[in-house]
Amino acid sequence: MAQLVKVQNFVVSSDGFGAGEDQSLDRPFGRADPGSMFAWAGATASWPNRTDPGGSRGLDDYFTRDFAHNVGAEIMGAHKFSPYRGPWENLDWQGWWGDEPPFHTPVFVLTHHERPSFTLSDTTFHFVNGDLADVLRLAKQAAQGRDVRIGGGATTIRSFLEADLIDTLHVAVSPVELGHGVSLWKTPDELLDRFHLDVVPSPSGVTHHLFWRK
Amino acid sequence: MAQLVKVQNFVVSSDGFGAGEDQSLDRPFGRADPGSMFAWAGATASWPNRTDPGGSRGLDDYFTRDFAHNVGAEIMGAHKFSPYRGPWENLDWQGWWGDEPPFHTPVFVLTHHERPSFTLSDTTFHFVNGDLADVLRLAKQAAQGRDVRIGGGATTIRSFLEADLIDTLHVAVSPVELGHGVSLWKTPDELLDRFHLDVVPSPSGVTHHLFWRK
Repeated sequence: MAQLVKVQNFVVSSDGFGAGEDQSLDRPFGRADPGSMFAWAGATASWPNRTDPGGSRGLDDYFTRDFAHNVGAEIMGAHKFSPYRGPWENLDWQGWWGDEPPFHTPVFVLTHHERPSFTLSDTTFHFVNGDLADVLRLAKQAAQGRDVRIGGGATTIRSFLEADLIDTLHVAVSPVELGHGVSLWKTPDELLDRFHLDVVPSPSGVTHHLFWRK
Repeated sequence: MAQLVKVQNFVVSSDGFGAGEDQSLDRPFGRADPGSMFAWAGATASWPNRTDPGGSRGLDDYFTRDFAHNVGAEIMGAHKFSPYRGPWENLDWQGWWGDEPPFHTPVFVLTHHERPSFTLSDTTFHFVNGDLADVLRLAKQAAQGRDVRIGGGATTIRSFLEADLIDTLHVAVSPVELGHGVSLWKTPDELLDRFHLDVVPSPSGVTHHLFWRK
């Protein structure tokens, strides 16, 4: 089985924004409401942050259930990891996810401001400054034959798409319109020269977009 | 996480038949053409019997990819295992699947004609004669906390539904009409008193039906 590079459960607004502008400590998604964008995922039985039993086991649950399946490493942009810009003033910040991050694999954070690796539960964060192909090589090695997730944000996914390094994408388009923010695309049609696309409307209101290479 | 009892990737005709009549050694699905009923699954990258690389990675692939996910045992009816009826004349028959069956777990075959267990690769077949709840108890124990798949055929699934022992079902309704055969349902609506239902048309032509308990 080939080792895939994939985007999974990435949510954008109906107009293609992965987050709003003005990210801050209180607003990891900037001027976008993550509650409305991620409601479809939070309602499923397999949502990693679910604390009570129950949850839906229909279409949307296949996507949250597949999140960890055969994934051996993640690459994320600096802004997915942290609201801070510029050199680290201290090393107190360890991500948004508390003591039990939902990744359970090595995670490579793309940054111009490197810092030592650290481990929380079974997730180890590495900080890397290099071109995308080199970082991907590191992540593939760390994944030990399993797939590599490109975790976002939108700018990071765009960079990997421009470098033609992505094999499959699952993007959930939410019915919320943002107007402006961090753009993944103007329209999903931008990818149709290189990818097949299944468009799958869900009863929850999001429309799953599934791309794989031609 | 609760241990689920689930039906996965079970294919029926548009009129609800899981197989045609007159099963025989040459026709495991009787007077139904498995080629047309399973074409959607065979086209996916994750189809277990795929020998060449490639295959689609859209909606249908989520279902074939999920087949083995967290499944620890299968229960199947005697007619899924074998075309023979009545007592075993000999023990030469070891299923339709060759030396490498696609189950990779213990499999419990419901039969009035018991025979010794045997193992092919990492699948062990057990032959059990008892009421469904007892067999399910055995299978759950063998699954060691993972889920139990009810593998079919249609008659076996109906029996487990009548005993109210199933938590989730994924049934792919193919556009092929059979007219008669082994029936799963007259209409999926029969299950709506007990189950939620997502109906998801696939670009491949099948319509995925996803049921989970209310």
